[in-house]
Amino acid sequence: MLRTKEQFIESLRDGRDVYFKGEKVDVTSHSFFEPVINHLGIEFEIPESPQYKDLVTFSPGGKEMYSKYFKIPRAAQDLLERSRIIDLGTRLGGTVVLLIKEIGTDCLFALNIVSRQMDSRLQTDYSRRVSNYHDYCMKNDLAMAVAQTDVKGDRSLGPSDQEHDDYYVRIIEERSDGIVVRGAKAHTSYGPCVNELIVIPTRNMSEKDSRYAVAFAVPANAKGVKMVASPFGGTTRSAFHNPISSSHHMVESLTIFDDVFVPWERVFMKGEAPFAGPLALTFVQFHRFTAISYKAPILDLLVGAAILMAQANGIADTSHVREKLAQLIAYAETVKGLTKQSALNCRRVEEVAVPDPVYSNIAKWHFASNYHQHVALVQDLTGGLTVTGPSEEDLNSPATGGYVRKYLAARKGISADDRLRVINLVRDLTASDFGGYNELLQIHAEGSIEASKITLLREYDARPCVELAEKLAKVRTNSF
Amino acid sequence: MLRTKEQFIESLRDGRDVYFKGEKVDVTSHSFFEPVINHLGIEFEIPESPQYKDLVTFSPGGKEMYSKYFKIPRAAQDLLERSRIIDLGTRLGGTVVLLIKEIGTDCLFALNIVSRQMDSRLQTDYSRRVSNYHDYCMKNDLAMAVAQTDVKGDRSLGPSDQEHDDYYVRIIEERSDGIVVRGAKAHTSYGPCVNELIVIPTRNMSEKDSRYAVAFAVPANAKGVKMVASPFGGTTRSAFHNPISSSHHMVESLTIFDDVFVPWERVFMKGEAPFAGPLALTFVQFHRFTAISYKAPILDLLVGAAILMAQANGIADTSHVREKLAQLIAYAETVKGLTKQSALNCRRVEEVAVPDPVYSNIAKWHFASNYHQHVALVQDLTGGLTVTGPSEEDLNSPATGGYVRKYLAARKGISADDRLRVINLVRDLTASDFGGYNELLQIHAEGSIEASKITLLREYDARPCVELAEKLAKVRTNSF
Amino acid sequence: MLRTKEQFIESLRDGRDVYFKGEKVDVTSHSFFEPVINHLGIEFEIPESPQYKDLVTFSPGGKEMYSKYFKIPRAAQDLLERSRIIDLGTRLGGTVVLLIKEIGTDCLFALNIVSRQMDSRLQTDYSRRVSNYHDYCMKNDLAMAVAQTDVKGDRSLGPSDQEHDDYYVRIIEERSDGIVVRGAKAHTSYGPCVNELIVIPTRNMSEKDSRYAVAFAVPANAKGVKMVASPFGGTTRSAFHNPISSSHHMVESLTIFDDVFVPWERVFMKGEAPFAGPLALTFVQFHRFTAISYKAPILDLLVGAAILMAQANGIADTSHVREKLAQLIAYAETVKGLTKQSALNCRRVEEVAVPDPVYSNIAKWHFASNYHQHVALVQDLTGGLTVTGPSEEDLNSPATGGYVRKYLAARKGISADDRLRVINLVRDLTASDFGGYNELLQIHAEGSIEASKITLLREYDARPCVELAEKLAKVRTNSF
Amino acid sequence: MLRTKEQFIESLRDGRDVYFKGEKVDVTSHSFFEPVINHLGIEFEIPESPQYKDLVTFSPGGKEMYSKYFKIPRAAQDLLERSRIIDLGTRLGGTVVLLIKEIGTDCLFALNIVSRQMDSRLQTDYSRRVSNYHDYCMKNDLAMAVAQTDVKGDRSLGPSDQEHDDYYVRIIEERSDGIVVRGAKAHTSYGPCVNELIVIPTRNMSEKDSRYAVAFAVPANAKGVKMVASPFGGTTRSAFHNPISSSHHMVESLTIFDDVFVPWERVFMKGEAPFAGPLALTFVQFHRFTAISYKAPILDLLVGAAILMAQANGIADTSHVREKLAQLIAYAETVKGLTKQSALNCRRVEEVAVPDPVYSNIAKWHFASNYHQHVALVQDLTGGLTVTGPSEEDLNSPATGGYVRKYLAARKGISADDRLRVINLVRDLTASDFGGYNELLQIHAEGSIEASKITLLREYDARPCVELAEKLAKVRTNSF
Repeated sequence: MLRTKEQFIESLRDGRDVYFKGEKVDVTSHSFFEPVINHLGIEFEIPESPQYKDLVTFSPGGKEMYSKYFKIPRAAQDLLERSRIIDLGTRLGGTVVLLIKEIGTDCLFALNIVSRQMDSRLQTDYSRRVSNYHDYCMKNDLAMAVAQTDVKGDRSLGPSDQEHDDYYVRIIEERSDGIVVRGAKAHTSYGPCVNELIVIPTRNMSEKDSRYAVAFAVPANAKGVKMVASPFGGTTRSAFHNPISSSHHMVESLTIFDDVFVPWERVFMKGEAPFAGPLALTFVQFHRFTAISYKAPILDLLVGAAILMAQANGIADTSHVREKLAQLIAYAETVKGLTKQSALNCRRVEEVAVPDPVYSNIAKWHFASNYHQHVALVQDLTGGLTVTGPSEEDLNSPATGGYVRKYLAARKGISADDRLRVINLVRDLTASDFGGYNELLQIHAEGSIEASKITLLREYDARPCVELAEKLAKVRTNSF
Repeated sequence: MLRTKEQFIESLRDGRDVYFKGEKVDVTSHSFFEPVINHLGIEFEIPESPQYKDLVTFSPGGKEMYSKYFKIPRAAQDLLERSRIIDLGTRLGGTVVLLIKEIGTDCLFALNIVSRQMDSRLQTDYSRRVSNYHDYCMKNDLAMAVAQTDVKGDRSLGPSDQEHDDYYVRIIEERSDGIVVRGAKAHTSYGPCVNELIVIPTRNMSEKDSRYAVAFAVPANAKGVKMVASPFGGTTRSAFHNPISSSHHMVESLTIFDDVFVPWERVFMKGEAPFAGPLALTFVQFHRFTAISYKAPILDLLVGAAILMAQANGIADTSHVREKLAQLIAYAETVKGLTKQSALNCRRVEEVAVPDPVYSNIAKWHFASNYHQHVALVQDLTGGLTVTGPSEEDLNSPATGGYVRKYLAARKGISADDRLRVINLVRDLTASDFGGYNELLQIHAEGSIEASKITLLREYDARPCVELAEKLAKVRTNSF
Repeated sequence: MLRTKEQFIESLRDGRDVYFKGEKVDVTSHSFFEPVINHLGIEFEIPESPQYKDLVTFSPGGKEMYSKYFKIPRAAQDLLERSRIIDLGTRLGGTVVLLIKEIGTDCLFALNIVSRQMDSRLQTDYSRRVSNYHDYCMKNDLAMAVAQTDVKGDRSLGPSDQEHDDYYVRIIEERSDGIVVRGAKAHTSYGPCVNELIVIPTRNMSEKDSRYAVAFAVPANAKGVKMVASPFGGTTRSAFHNPISSSHHMVESLTIFDDVFVPWERVFMKGEAPFAGPLALTFVQFHRFTAISYKAPILDLLVGAAILMAQANGIADTSHVREKLAQLIAYAETVKGLTKQSALNCRRVEEVAVPDPVYSNIAKWHFASNYHQHVALVQDLTGGLTVTGPSEEDLNSPATGGYVRKYLAARKGISADDRLRVINLVRDLTASDFGGYNELLQIHAEGSIEASKITLLREYDARPCVELAEKLAKVRTNSF
Repeated sequence: MLRTKEQFIESLRDGRDVYFKGEKVDVTSHSFFEPVINHLGIEFEIPESPQYKDLVTFSPGGKEMYSKYFKIPRAAQDLLERSRIIDLGTRLGGTVVLLIKEIGTDCLFALNIVSRQMDSRLQTDYSRRVSNYHDYCMKNDLAMAVAQTDVKGDRSLGPSDQEHDDYYVRIIEERSDGIVVRGAKAHTSYGPCVNELIVIPTRNMSEKDSRYAVAFAVPANAKGVKMVASPFGGTTRSAFHNPISSSHHMVESLTIFDDVFVPWERVFMKGEAPFAGPLALTFVQFHRFTAISYKAPILDLLVGAAILMAQANGIADTSHVREKLAQLIAYAETVKGLTKQSALNCRRVEEVAVPDPVYSNIAKWHFASNYHQHVALVQDLTGGLTVTGPSEEDLNSPATGGYVRKYLAARKGISADDRLRVINLVRDLTASDFGGYNELLQIHAEGSIEASKITLLREYDARPCVELAEKLAKVRTNSF
């Protein structure tokens, strides 16, 4: 049953342990979280819109309508549609990612696949639990965060070789009714504002690390779960100066599992070390596809803002400006085109359509490794006024407003007010706390640039290439 | 009716005026042209192969089989299939482009569209002529070259403003039975080795340039047509040292129209200046799609050769080598993925499916502007021996063969012979007369890099981007 | 006579019209300006340090000591020394530029040269005025801002063709005792916190724009001068979260000349249109050298922060990390090396050593066009925690401090506190309001990237290159 | 005593074992070697020119004049002068490197330093031998090649771990009068055309590889030395089509040591494994400086050819052309400027001035990793005619010459002949066997790109950077 925004907000008042600046807070009433929760609310409003309803809902049983995020993709078209839904939500959310349901369902799909693989290999009973949990979240229209990235300690060491045992989340006790876990996960997107936390491993595990091979789900208010929310990425909140970040925002938490009990029905992996890597990776296959799908709006925005600024400044026909606009367009469309190819070339695994990792990782890599350079192009076209211009109050003051309006107009027909609004958009998006947040997000979210390369090399079938080279070189050796 | 390779070769013995190194030659017996003609022969052999027959032939009337190159694309699937046919021929031709039928049919498709547009706008009779000519070429399975690029003189001046009148091909006389043309077209691919030359304008024309707005077709042996063949791009011909270029090669000509008569039935544009640009452009829309389709094999070859060399040299697991391989793969697959997107996003114009110019031009630009850098990666992995290694004769000589075999083996299991064969492949492809030819081809063929950017900017619909930016910046001005 | 920091601050209490957020403010007591003025104060403290005294002061007459910024460079060594002084001040100022005396003296040097050129060509009396003004500023140890960039209106139009007459600063009245000027200059660095404003043209002027060809100096509190200070670039001020920007900061103003009277002795150009461009350019020659000189500390800081983070995270020996460190080092040292070459290849004009514009513009271009990409490398090495980490209060809270310290430590021996301090440094420098300010500064300050290219092409003597090409090609034509 | 070109040539007729295409040849009479030897002869002609004499000769004892290449650098000025001499020779040699004396003396300088270090550490007697050998070469004005790069076998294995023992040159016997060596060195520049071969290790050696830690010199005709000359890099020899490579050329050999006896006086290292790496590295420090010094002419040539072509084609004022010219200039001058910095920042080791490796490696890396991309710019400006144009014979033939001249002229005042000459220059330099040779040379000669990065990281003193970061981050830990 689809929930309303109000029901969603109400559900967050459950006594959860969320800390902000060192103090426990109620996220539904704390001013820092207001734009976050309003932003997340969009996801609950979209299905109410007649325009979007058919796109974003489905009815698996033919009666009740659910969010289509929960629909398991079976073919390329399902993935293309999922991509459109993600794009829509992000676009309506001012290019700020909506991760409430996409990340959670990415993880449910991965659990669906890997639990079947475990069951068929190890005669376990995980797929039934996963399926029940999937239905539970879908039917209650829950918001889920995924806590995957362990805090890791020294990156050059594995889980068991660290200075202390808890740098990776681990099972510290096995009981008749479930397990007890300890550890912490870094940067959990929206952790403080969801209903459920799904926890999975972050990497391959060897047998000696088997107590770290654990996957499970807990409600956000489970005893022992503590979330330390991060204050960064958009602290200033003027609707004029921060047209995006004043009303749309993410939040991440350091999510601590201080000896949290998980009943068996919510345990999806318990020590099956050889499946830790596959689960981590399968989630990532889905999640990188989500990642490149939600980049489309920000890419379009960079193009659009650049064109607006070039026109406002009267330089749109200049040769170097046209070169920069062409670069921005090519950048945007390359990522978008490769995203579609990832869906179209999907692979079926355990009857689930998995986005093609070759194209999704190339798209992700291309996006992430070129983002800053294209931000630079937009800043170049926007001009130094981005950081040397006047404030909203200067515009409104009798002492200064007239001067500002007279002198900061540009091309005929463009008022200083409108020009400053577009400049503010560029600054908020690229040259502010929020802009810095965006830069880090592009590099690190959904897997680093290096991770994309590694996945690409592992997933790419180079045999046709090698065979062509061998044929033309007239060599044939099995050692190749 | 499909011709055999022998019939094709025989058809070139028609008295045509082809010059090589200053002398008139018979292309079917001159040693320089031997690999060119053998290479082109592949296109006539493919339809004879049971394996490929269905892919490369079609039967529009249900009886006679023709080359599928002549099939007018009506939907995305037709373009995807055309792309596969082009890929296949290029792959079998050692990554050297096959342009006999693809370039000619690209031009026929463009003439098909623009002749209809002219007829409907100007009540001319061109589309009938084009249709007849299309059938003539298809039924006789002819090889056609397209002569588009005028020699241009001073690039900063238009056709009528040049130092002499003939820098662009023009009509010098109009007669009751046809027209007489004069001028020269540069770098006509395969001109000396085809049956037909199709001539179209190279650019927009203003009314004062209307005598330059001319399109027509003539047989390669038409009176007054003289072709000066270029000797570059692969003069050395050792099967060992030049595994590709010794047996596969292109040829271009400076194609001179020394007052050539063209009967009306073969005239497809005569002075309709406003349609010169559209014809040039529509051809280019098809031809850039052909271009990016035939790049796939050379991209695969760069990847394959790099992997072979890395393995032969025992460095395949080195971190910087893996980085380079990942870059090569991403480069190759980006171009290939965007090519598919160009087909999938095609536009129907006059009932013909035209490849999407946004994706085809981004693909072309991406390919062309990054080719040299990726060649550098392959050369880097191959090593200095590429240009400091021994000759085939050194390998075979009793005096030196033993030393070469002993000292130039590398990783265990890779003989010096095999290693040198792969090195030869890389040198032939990237660091030789033929390699230089390839570099120039990538930059200039099918339109320059700058042309790709211009087309991209013109064809891109930026409105959704601008609207998103306006909405988020909270501005709304018609002047944008 | 050298002033103390206190004397400097006291001198700013002169009734000047500075507006912040729409209200007139006293910069010496307003909290926003506190870090700016403290930062500028460093320039007055350095000469008091025994360690630096000799480097930063000089005594032209042999008695009184003055700031060496005022020393007119006569040879390469003077420029190298000036570069070291600029580097020192910037380094002590936390990589935030110190522009009080360098920008002002850059402008005095340019006025020195161009006034002599005007006097010798036009028999004017400017060089005497400039010399007196130079002495006045030097002897009183004044802080000077340079107001050069007009607000410009429509960039595609010249001063006289704009929608209104005042988009460029112009002379509106000529009186017996001086001139009256009107207009506004954008982004005047430190305008609100200096003693003197020097005003020069921003571009070439044609004869019809002669009323815009004007150069002069006024005290910051001159009647009719109004400065609207910009609030951007570092609003948050936690010593923990913003280790640099909380105590070091620039400020820019929109500087309005609302019919300001300038007495003749302070007028340095009045209608000599052909000299507007040379003055603008000569200033820029000096100022781009200043620009690349003050980049050294931030370049060093990017390298240092990257190394610290790589070590803290335990990834310093990873291959891709080493690649990134090498790139950062090469980037930093290329700019620094070319800066020295600019000094060493200086040209003497009117007995003043002008930094070589070829090297300074290449250095500037290299720095500006690659800054974002190198910031991305540092952010990559630092990790997502940069924007998802906890706050200072979380670290200090009994409820959360223990968790944060336990889980956010990394490599053995690096405490979470220290790691977060380095992360904060990176965020403050690159991913914050201040980081965005830095990005814009790199692109736009001291001339845009496009301006650097244009200057490079104009100043480069390509004859030796063309002659070598002609000799080897065996051609010789005067038209080349 | 300085030799004449004739004396040099005569000295090569000494019975040496040089093989070309499998047969033993006399390099002084074989047509392949003619341009090589004529090219090398330039080095003996330059000192005879009154214009250059003072620059390129010196008289250490005050009487006899010797080549200044042999002068041991003691200060920055010596290195700057050496750089100028190398530039001069390369420029006169058509941008093709002259390596006869520079590479040999680079090695003598390295032997000078490391032999002293060995003597003082191990009480050996090497420095006396090196000094005598240095004098011997200088006084007889000998041409020396350096054979450093072992054939290496499997690059992932050390010398002792290879499939056979001879993948690295090693001592196979120690006799009372000297040693016997076996093995082979790859790509010895000019090996077949020099008087002396100096052999040094190619890498660090561990103790178990001590028999591979060997350095020595032998005459080119020493018994057992066999050189297999490579045929690549410029086989076609038309003065019109190959204006550079028809008269200037390098040659490399696979240099085989088939049990070669070396008397003690010519042995400079014999098993001192810890000094193998330092010798290899010290040589490279000098040789990379030589490398970046001899790049200046080819960089100038790229700039000059690009300008000539842009002018010939009438596109010199086009915006994208100007952008490309600016890029070429910046590329050239960055390498040249950093080369000067390498000399100016030299370090004195054992009283020898060693070029600063930080700047030389950055210069080398910048040059090598951007060469192909800048070649692409030149090819872009030159046009497709580079590989589709006519031959010299077409220009001279009565049948075709008129057409070619009429149609291939471009901008008024530029004849087709001259235009084709410049095009030929570009093709020869960048898009031919010789062009391919150049590309490989840029990547691999004097150490690979990866080697430059490794050296840079090892040699860079990052402490000031780290200290600045620590100061600003307010952390201080010894573990950093």
